[in-house]
Amino acid sequence: MDLASFVGIVSGLFLIVSAIILGGDVHNFYNAPGLMIVLGGTTAATVLTFQVGDVIASFKAAYIVFLTNKQDPNDMVSTMLRLCNISRRKGLLGLADVKTNSPFIKRVCLLISDASDEQIIRATLRTEIDSMKMRHFIIQDVFRRMAVYAPAFGMLGTLIGLIQMLSKLTEPESMGQAMAIALLTTFYGSLLSTMIFLPIAGKLRSRTMLEVINLEIAYEGAVSILQDNNSLSVYEKLSAYIPKALRNPMPRPDSKNSRTRK
Amino acid sequence: MDLASFVGIVSGLFLIVSAIILGGDVHNFYNAPGLMIVLGGTTAATVLTFQVGDVIASFKAAYIVFLTNKQDPNDMVSTMLRLCNISRRKGLLGLADVKTNSPFIKRVCLLISDASDEQIIRATLRTEIDSMKMRHFIIQDVFRRMAVYAPAFGMLGTLIGLIQMLSKLTEPESMGQAMAIALLTTFYGSLLSTMIFLPIAGKLRSRTMLEVINLEIAYEGAVSILQDNNSLSVYEKLSAYIPKALRNPMPRPDSKNSRTRK
Amino acid sequence: MDLASFVGIVSGLFLIVSAIILGGDVHNFYNAPGLMIVLGGTTAATVLTFQVGDVIASFKAAYIVFLTNKQDPNDMVSTMLRLCNISRRKGLLGLADVKTNSPFIKRVCLLISDASDEQIIRATLRTEIDSMKMRHFIIQDVFRRMAVYAPAFGMLGTLIGLIQMLSKLTEPESMGQAMAIALLTTFYGSLLSTMIFLPIAGKLRSRTMLEVINLEIAYEGAVSILQDNNSLSVYEKLSAYIPKALRNPMPRPDSKNSRTRK
Amino acid sequence: MDLASFVGIVSGLFLIVSAIILGGDVHNFYNAPGLMIVLGGTTAATVLTFQVGDVIASFKAAYIVFLTNKQDPNDMVSTMLRLCNISRRKGLLGLADVKTNSPFIKRVCLLISDASDEQIIRATLRTEIDSMKMRHFIIQDVFRRMAVYAPAFGMLGTLIGLIQMLSKLTEPESMGQAMAIALLTTFYGSLLSTMIFLPIAGKLRSRTMLEVINLEIAYEGAVSILQDNNSLSVYEKLSAYIPKALRNPMPRPDSKNSRTRK
Amino acid sequence: MDLASFVGIVSGLFLIVSAIILGGDVHNFYNAPGLMIVLGGTTAATVLTFQVGDVIASFKAAYIVFLTNKQDPNDMVSTMLRLCNISRRKGLLGLADVKTNSPFIKRVCLLISDASDEQIIRATLRTEIDSMKMRHFIIQDVFRRMAVYAPAFGMLGTLIGLIQMLSKLTEPESMGQAMAIALLTTFYGSLLSTMIFLPIAGKLRSRTMLEVINLEIAYEGAVSILQDNNSLSVYEKLSAYIPKALRNPMPRPDSKNSRTRK
Repeated sequence: MDLASFVGIVSGLFLIVSAIILGGDVHNFYNAPGLMIVLGGTTAATVLTFQVGDVIASFKAAYIVFLTNKQDPNDMVSTMLRLCNISRRKGLLGLADVKTNSPFIKRVCLLISDASDEQIIRATLRTEIDSMKMRHFIIQDVFRRMAVYAPAFGMLGTLIGLIQMLSKLTEPESMGQAMAIALLTTFYGSLLSTMIFLPIAGKLRSRTMLEVINLEIAYEGAVSILQDNNSLSVYEKLSAYIPKALRNPMPRPDSKNSRTRK
Repeated sequence: MDLASFVGIVSGLFLIVSAIILGGDVHNFYNAPGLMIVLGGTTAATVLTFQVGDVIASFKAAYIVFLTNKQDPNDMVSTMLRLCNISRRKGLLGLADVKTNSPFIKRVCLLISDASDEQIIRATLRTEIDSMKMRHFIIQDVFRRMAVYAPAFGMLGTLIGLIQMLSKLTEPESMGQAMAIALLTTFYGSLLSTMIFLPIAGKLRSRTMLEVINLEIAYEGAVSILQDNNSLSVYEKLSAYIPKALRNPMPRPDSKNSRTRK
Repeated sequence: MDLASFVGIVSGLFLIVSAIILGGDVHNFYNAPGLMIVLGGTTAATVLTFQVGDVIASFKAAYIVFLTNKQDPNDMVSTMLRLCNISRRKGLLGLADVKTNSPFIKRVCLLISDASDEQIIRATLRTEIDSMKMRHFIIQDVFRRMAVYAPAFGMLGTLIGLIQMLSKLTEPESMGQAMAIALLTTFYGSLLSTMIFLPIAGKLRSRTMLEVINLEIAYEGAVSILQDNNSLSVYEKLSAYIPKALRNPMPRPDSKNSRTRK
Repeated sequence: MDLASFVGIVSGLFLIVSAIILGGDVHNFYNAPGLMIVLGGTTAATVLTFQVGDVIASFKAAYIVFLTNKQDPNDMVSTMLRLCNISRRKGLLGLADVKTNSPFIKRVCLLISDASDEQIIRATLRTEIDSMKMRHFIIQDVFRRMAVYAPAFGMLGTLIGLIQMLSKLTEPESMGQAMAIALLTTFYGSLLSTMIFLPIAGKLRSRTMLEVINLEIAYEGAVSILQDNNSLSVYEKLSAYIPKALRNPMPRPDSKNSRTRK
Repeated sequence: MDLASFVGIVSGLFLIVSAIILGGDVHNFYNAPGLMIVLGGTTAATVLTFQVGDVIASFKAAYIVFLTNKQDPNDMVSTMLRLCNISRRKGLLGLADVKTNSPFIKRVCLLISDASDEQIIRATLRTEIDSMKMRHFIIQDVFRRMAVYAPAFGMLGTLIGLIQMLSKLTEPESMGQAMAIALLTTFYGSLLSTMIFLPIAGKLRSRTMLEVINLEIAYEGAVSILQDNNSLSVYEKLSAYIPKALRNPMPRPDSKNSRTRK
């Protein structure tokens, strides 16, 4: 996880917990049946909507997103420029033995060096980008759904508590206590949704956007290699994806260390 | 129904029921007029929006979705590769006697072996995919509407209860009981919506997404057969629909058992 | 109105009314100023948003939708096949004297028999479908707006009632009664929205979807006639719009009674 | 303003005001600080979102929409047919001195008579239609935002009132009065939103839709003039934008009075 | 900041503050734990959704938008006309030494004078416009998310306050005070959202729309230069983006001062 996210979540929880402590006992905020309703209900409805496997895969994906840093599009631009140079010097076949740890770029290299038809290469890469977007959309969807289910079960729990409280109104002295407990499930549901599920869904969404930009750069780069454009116009085309202020200058087409730079 | 969904719905209901039992009598949660308003109103409004036939068809479709397991896109890829091999060995006519239990693939085979024009084949399959999406959309829509109507009638029931309670406020000792009953319809409506209708609509949606991917693979495969592409490039093109991690390797083009494998 | 819709609305109202009677006096649910606010406000805001003419036209359209049964796309397919056969036997001019009670098919026949350019025929029919969709969208929009305005004026009425009640709190014994009356407008608004306006808007939407499918079949059929396709491929193309299970088999191209069949 | 809109707004306000008078004193519904919060807050947030100039322009546009009647698409069709006839008799240059009070048609005539390239004429008119849509969208957006801000500031005012009331709970006899005043701002905000801002935004939207249809007819007519289509096929093409029931028959191509008809 | 926005925000805050002062003590509206929960929670959730860097960049972007005035599209039209004239007189190479302070126009000039292929120039500029839209979308998204998180944490704070209050209901005299404090966090959250975050997000959105229009004019202008259109048709094409009423007349193609005019 990048440090800022970590600081964010810790300081947010710290502020809320300290505000609670300032106002009274923390143990007022623990209620086992309330937690059972919110956690159980959310889990059940999510598993019912998707499947256990999908939910576990989504949590894994979220875990990976928080562990890895986001990729700089400038790196992708310079990688594609490097591939472009290799292909101009050694021919398209030269791309076959490029080393890279991105599976998408590996695939690009293999497709090009296999001397496939340009139309098929374009269609294959486009399909890969589109199906990546759809998979990520499903993963985000799991968390967006949980962000909807959690407060809904919170409200259900509060309704249960209120109905139970109102049914035995003969003992009015315990009414405040019962109502506090009833409200706890709404609190649990809203906290889970606002503090956990919505931010994760949002983070996954903005990470997907960035990844799509990277893949679009790779796609445009692959098309440029096939069309045998020169480095300058490739750089012009690819760097248009990056805001002016963050754009790296065009790397020197130094063929000596271009293969070992990364 | 796949086991996970079953475990999900059972454990969710178990947690909610046990939380209710922990808090008091369960019979407080049964109220006939409240159930009449929520169930009757939801049914009436849904039937009015759609038609009885459509609603029954939607429930049948949901039942089938929960009974059948989802199809692995890898199977579709290998099926299309098999068809591709058959067509290369025996000609397009050879596809006429392929055995399959998917009506869509059967249709693909017949269309190709009938020597129809490529343009017509493409248009027909595209229309079939699009109208499948629209039909599924209508089925999901039935449940999404019910998920909107149920809490709305729950709220209407609570309003009815409150108005009746407030009109005879001369007997304040029964007020708690009356209010508990009034809240019950909101509880029924929300429970139905959150626990039943929303998850079903969500499940239908994610299943449709998967089915669309399968049909897109079949569509692309059919186009490849017509263009007489080789196995490798067909595999490349079709497997792009599947995430890298879940992708099966290309099956050996073993012509001996390829026809009996499935 | 088809019987199911009728049964739906009657049984829904019956359940709600009987639940109210079980709980107390029905005359508690009648309040003239409340009805004035909800009905007057909704009418005023709707007329302001659209125009009196549009609102009346929408109610007429909704009335017609509930009176007529939905059209079976299979009929449209067989009609287009019949036209196709006529055009193959008698030439495009033969379509000029086809009898039909659908204005769209009449128009298709006239356009084709007038020997217009194919491009103009396509554009004209496409425009007709698109502007039909837009007109239906506006009609649905009237009811969707009313479904928003009715509860909003219900809430305004409740606010008015509460403010009046709270301003003269010196007489606490009438407070329950006043609050019940205040809640009535929310009840009226929600009931109108959930029971009348939302279902009508939903029904109009699903009927439009079906009508679009019918027109798309007619459009594709017209294109096929112009391209002089054979019956089999026309049937293949058009029946793709209908789910497999509901699809009628291809009608025998019996030229004897094909003109009198419908 | 067309009469129906006028009757609509007057009768709506009359019903609400008379319902209030039936229930008690009207002066309970006036509260200066509440009005300050709702009007001030809504104005401030709107000006902050857009700019003073944009907001004033939007109010002017709304004023014009309520003053002018909507244009009948049939007029546009007959105008385009007239232009078509002129161009066939006098050549494209003849369109230069057509008199019209629609700036869009004037522009169409000038573009065509300037003998510009067809591609440029199409692109220019398309851009004009698109940028008209976007400008109208921004104007609607001002009212949609005000419809969101007004109830939000109403709720803020109510919160302020409640907090002040609860802080000095030592004087419980004034509590009802204070709560009534607190609720007034919610009433103001909802009334403004439901009665003024939402209907204006809705009216602007439906008027834009109609205007787009008119411009689309003019666009298609201009393309037909350039392609030198005959009157009949132009009429067929353009009248497809109008529902069958409202369609005027094709005007007689009477060249004598066609220039003076409008 | 343009003056109107400044007046807007100041007068809005003034009205709200003076309405509060009219109703009682202002210090009732300050509560440290409540502020901690709302500010802390919103910051934490936003940082978790995006990253600290993105959030800071968004605040910078919002600051710049409020400082700079919006660009008049008429200026862009006349700039592009000027470039067009230069290119017609001096050839495409003449654009290389045009002085401008817009990085986008600079880029247009360089791309054209580098004699790149027209297809590449179009694709590069289109990518730049699209990625500009996406970056602005992300910036707006930060504020839209904060507008969602702030009231959510406000409600969480109120729940915390209510639960604490209800747990110690033995001291009923302090109940009003405690409830007032509980409501304060909802007030903070709503105020932040309605008064700060929503207007900023809205302003960024409308500014982006305007900027897109400017870039579209530049894009169309660049295409016109490459196609060597004459000034009149360029003016016709580009001014179509501007509403008739705000359109400047075509500037005199005075070559003497055209280079020094801006």
